[in-house]
Amino acid sequence: MSELNVVVIGGVSCGPKSAARLKRLMPKANVTLIERGQDISYGGCGLPYYIGATVKELNDLMTTSWDAVRTPEFMKATKDIDTLLGWEATKIDREKKVVAVKDVKTGEEKELPYDKVVIATGSSNFKPPIKNIDATGVFGVKTPSDGVAIQNYLKGGVGSAVVIGAGLIGMETAEAFANWGIDVTVIEMMDQVFPKMIDKDMAAVVQDYLEKEDMNFMLSTAVKEIKVDADGKVCGVITDKGELDCEIVLVAAGVRPEISLAQEAGLETDRTIVVNEYMQTSDPDIYAGGDCVSVTNRISGEKIFAPMGSTSNKHGRIIGTNIAQGNSQKFPGVLGTSICKMFDWSIGKVGLTEADAVRLGFDVATCVVPGPDITHFMPGKKLIMVKTVADKKTARVLGVQIVGPGNVDKRIDTMAGAFSANPQLTAYDMANMDLAYAPPFSSAVDNLLTNANVMQNELEGRAHSYGFFEALEKFKDENVEFVDLRCCDEVKAMPFELPRLHHIPIEELRARAGELPKDKEIVVFCILSTRGYEAQLILENAGFENVHFIKGGIMFWPFKKYM
Amino acid sequence: MSELNVVVIGGVSCGPKSAARLKRLMPKANVTLIERGQDISYGGCGLPYYIGATVKELNDLMTTSWDAVRTPEFMKATKDIDTLLGWEATKIDREKKVVAVKDVKTGEEKELPYDKVVIATGSSNFKPPIKNIDATGVFGVKTPSDGVAIQNYLKGGVGSAVVIGAGLIGMETAEAFANWGIDVTVIEMMDQVFPKMIDKDMAAVVQDYLEKEDMNFMLSTAVKEIKVDADGKVCGVITDKGELDCEIVLVAAGVRPEISLAQEAGLETDRTIVVNEYMQTSDPDIYAGGDCVSVTNRISGEKIFAPMGSTSNKHGRIIGTNIAQGNSQKFPGVLGTSICKMFDWSIGKVGLTEADAVRLGFDVATCVVPGPDITHFMPGKKLIMVKTVADKKTARVLGVQIVGPGNVDKRIDTMAGAFSANPQLTAYDMANMDLAYAPPFSSAVDNLLTNANVMQNELEGRAHSYGFFEALEKFKDENVEFVDLRCCDEVKAMPFELPRLHHIPIEELRARAGELPKDKEIVVFCILSTRGYEAQLILENAGFENVHFIKGGIMFWPFKKYM
Repeated sequence: MSELNVVVIGGVSCGPKSAARLKRLMPKANVTLIERGQDISYGGCGLPYYIGATVKELNDLMTTSWDAVRTPEFMKATKDIDTLLGWEATKIDREKKVVAVKDVKTGEEKELPYDKVVIATGSSNFKPPIKNIDATGVFGVKTPSDGVAIQNYLKGGVGSAVVIGAGLIGMETAEAFANWGIDVTVIEMMDQVFPKMIDKDMAAVVQDYLEKEDMNFMLSTAVKEIKVDADGKVCGVITDKGELDCEIVLVAAGVRPEISLAQEAGLETDRTIVVNEYMQTSDPDIYAGGDCVSVTNRISGEKIFAPMGSTSNKHGRIIGTNIAQGNSQKFPGVLGTSICKMFDWSIGKVGLTEADAVRLGFDVATCVVPGPDITHFMPGKKLIMVKTVADKKTARVLGVQIVGPGNVDKRIDTMAGAFSANPQLTAYDMANMDLAYAPPFSSAVDNLLTNANVMQNELEGRAHSYGFFEALEKFKDENVEFVDLRCCDEVKAMPFELPRLHHIPIEELRARAGELPKDKEIVVFCILSTRGYEAQLILENAGFENVHFIKGGIMFWPFKKYM
Repeated sequence: MSELNVVVIGGVSCGPKSAARLKRLMPKANVTLIERGQDISYGGCGLPYYIGATVKELNDLMTTSWDAVRTPEFMKATKDIDTLLGWEATKIDREKKVVAVKDVKTGEEKELPYDKVVIATGSSNFKPPIKNIDATGVFGVKTPSDGVAIQNYLKGGVGSAVVIGAGLIGMETAEAFANWGIDVTVIEMMDQVFPKMIDKDMAAVVQDYLEKEDMNFMLSTAVKEIKVDADGKVCGVITDKGELDCEIVLVAAGVRPEISLAQEAGLETDRTIVVNEYMQTSDPDIYAGGDCVSVTNRISGEKIFAPMGSTSNKHGRIIGTNIAQGNSQKFPGVLGTSICKMFDWSIGKVGLTEADAVRLGFDVATCVVPGPDITHFMPGKKLIMVKTVADKKTARVLGVQIVGPGNVDKRIDTMAGAFSANPQLTAYDMANMDLAYAPPFSSAVDNLLTNANVMQNELEGRAHSYGFFEALEKFKDENVEFVDLRCCDEVKAMPFELPRLHHIPIEELRARAGELPKDKEIVVFCILSTRGYEAQLILENAGFENVHFIKGGIMFWPFKKYM
């Protein structure tokens, strides 16, 4: 039997990973890696950090952990993989079993015979139909050369920037611009930041923080046109809410999977290349992975388009394994996990948001619990705010969102670990997770466990609470009276004015409940809502029939701004 | 029906938690909390941090997150719980259904009628049979008054300390002493630090680091006698390995569950109070939880004694629920999760160690993978070393240990979340965990996922590797030749001398394999072992039949010290 010929199309992450894994399992296979760009195997997710000068050298995005740059020579010497750099795959001829390739610069063409093909063509930036979108000073972030071009432009001196799109890439690049001292405005079509990632209430908290960091936002706003000066350089944007001057525009309006090669080869596609759980396309000899395929959301069961470098690497390893060993490894799907650092805050999510869950028809319960990220008596503690979404019918936890200056990523990964091990995890399972406890690392009852406990009270119908937007409505309602449960010193820090407000510290509530009107609705609150549920129960036990507490207390929510 | 009388014995964590939960679910219950000490509801795990002056005020260990001190008055006003502080429960009379209590100071006695009892008597420090163990200057760490006494003694001026026991409390307190500038020697009967928590190889790495931080260790050493001066004050210790001067001795030789009350009441006990999964003793009206009961290790199925504040709080909530609502919540058990901060390092473990697994009869595979805790191109990255233990037969992951200066707790909790959701998790499940990736938080392939991938290579018999102690043996073996795979600059940092050493960077190995003898065993290594497995495969493919790599590379292991 002659050696297996494998052609891997796409050299960023899934492609090289599948090639390297395959060669380790099957050393004699002939593996050719095709990349139409100028670089292979780079950390594209690091580009905003290169643009923001957090990462000093572009090469750093292309090195191994021991500082070897992954050049074609490196790939050949270390891994015995042949790389065609600057070559584009133009056609997969499934009849002849060849991949036609073309040198992007010279136009030279040739055909590579294959036994197996890996399509790892990734995605490209979506270019919205905006006038002058190709003007000088308009950029996208996708390849190392984009990073270089943007940095060079910034070095020319830029005072203000517009970022179109408040998703992950847009926000990370907005922060990178801010690192240069540039005045940044983020324009987003949807009515919140991080629109596909977190719920609107959590997004309001994040936006409030970012505004304090001098970032500007125009939400529910569409960019109609990019204004250019006499030299054809960007000088502003025209939106449906008015005009804005700026010297650079970053377009981060999402990415689209690169599926044309697969489509032309007659492979099954939807908006992505359709693959089975072995990462195999409708042609058993052709595998596909990374940003050009859909993945199963393990919580909802839906097929979603969720391009992530972490997923792409997993795909690559599974494809390499399945080509070498026959289909033996399955990709189970993702959890929609995502995370972003913005200045001193982290914003993370795993599973479904409340909005996702409602759209999918779940009858949801939610809880929001802020708190310090380590034992409250230890120095260095920072706050995080955790929102949990669960299914009322089954008590399944559907998702968790966390924002704040404290340790967000640990809790996101803890839940990602738990959901990965069992996507049917309930609030009762979650409450009994045996997390690592010592005072420098967490509280004896970690924030996630408190969330699970509070969620049980919600699911069992004992906790009666209002979220941010519900509380805002209640503030306007003349028939609702409010009780501030905080102690004397804390009360001075009331961040907004409230009518019909009683101040009764929780310690005095049992004795002073008589001060409150029994014929009105009562809404109680404290700083982080630790006391809210207890107060609700005290009042209910004292004969009050309509008592609620404010989910998450009053510290994080930007009530003042919305009142 | 008259109201339920509930007597809760023990006021530290499980006790107050069960009382508070019960009152929230059953507001009219009469709940009495009995505590023979002087404080209730304190963070005992914070005592080493109070001793080390990281926590400034003792009261901080007894406050709520909003700085209210949990006094009996607070418990009454906020939670309607009656507290008998400084009273000891002397007998549970199951016939009369009363708990006999006695005022510790006055000797006054009375009986409290009960419908339900909660035994949350916790544990007490084990006092080993050492001469003069009650001398002035010998301390244990258990209660706030221990903390005050130790701090007062240290304020008198202490130059050197001996800590007996290298477990969690001993090590945390040793660090607290070091914070005072005290010269600390830790004496341990076993042949490693953290003996019940991590494997001996990982312990060697930790000890090596701590010695660099000027901490001294005497392992496999028994203290025979504490030496006292003319005033009866500690002035040294006599061990089976010689004498040592010191001015304070901290005894941290483990804790014993407080089960005498349960034993005298005729409840079923082993070394702990036996409870079912509802936390109910052999008497259905008596529940027990916290440090006085055993728990199921969810990985091994064994009943283990693993006293932890985090577990105790879970028990309290479940007991409160089950008394109020009938047995409805089960405690599923623990994972043996533990973590410790020592100076700039963290030491964490979840599940079984290799030693545990071998003792339990598993045929184990292990892998050790060090690496940066965030993307290697980001500033601020720190190293962690992850050891994973799995069952060869089922590919189940049995446990993970992590040490190093980097982000250990995130990965421990991620695995704790995963194991909690599914204790049968395999290395294949682990490799596909959808963890949160962005460059400031992790690599695209997180350390845990790399471990899972490496473990698959071990389990499938492809990776041939030697652990720390095996490598040490090979160094002595004349028939073994070594290959340093590192590049030129790195090689200068060779931390120890090795005979029969070839230097062939991985990039040159395919071309230069002929330089190596085919009739000898070859052991390859690099700095963190990223290149080791690849080199093994390259050599095997070149016809070498006996090739291994050093698990975890050469950077972390303290080879020099052991050679």
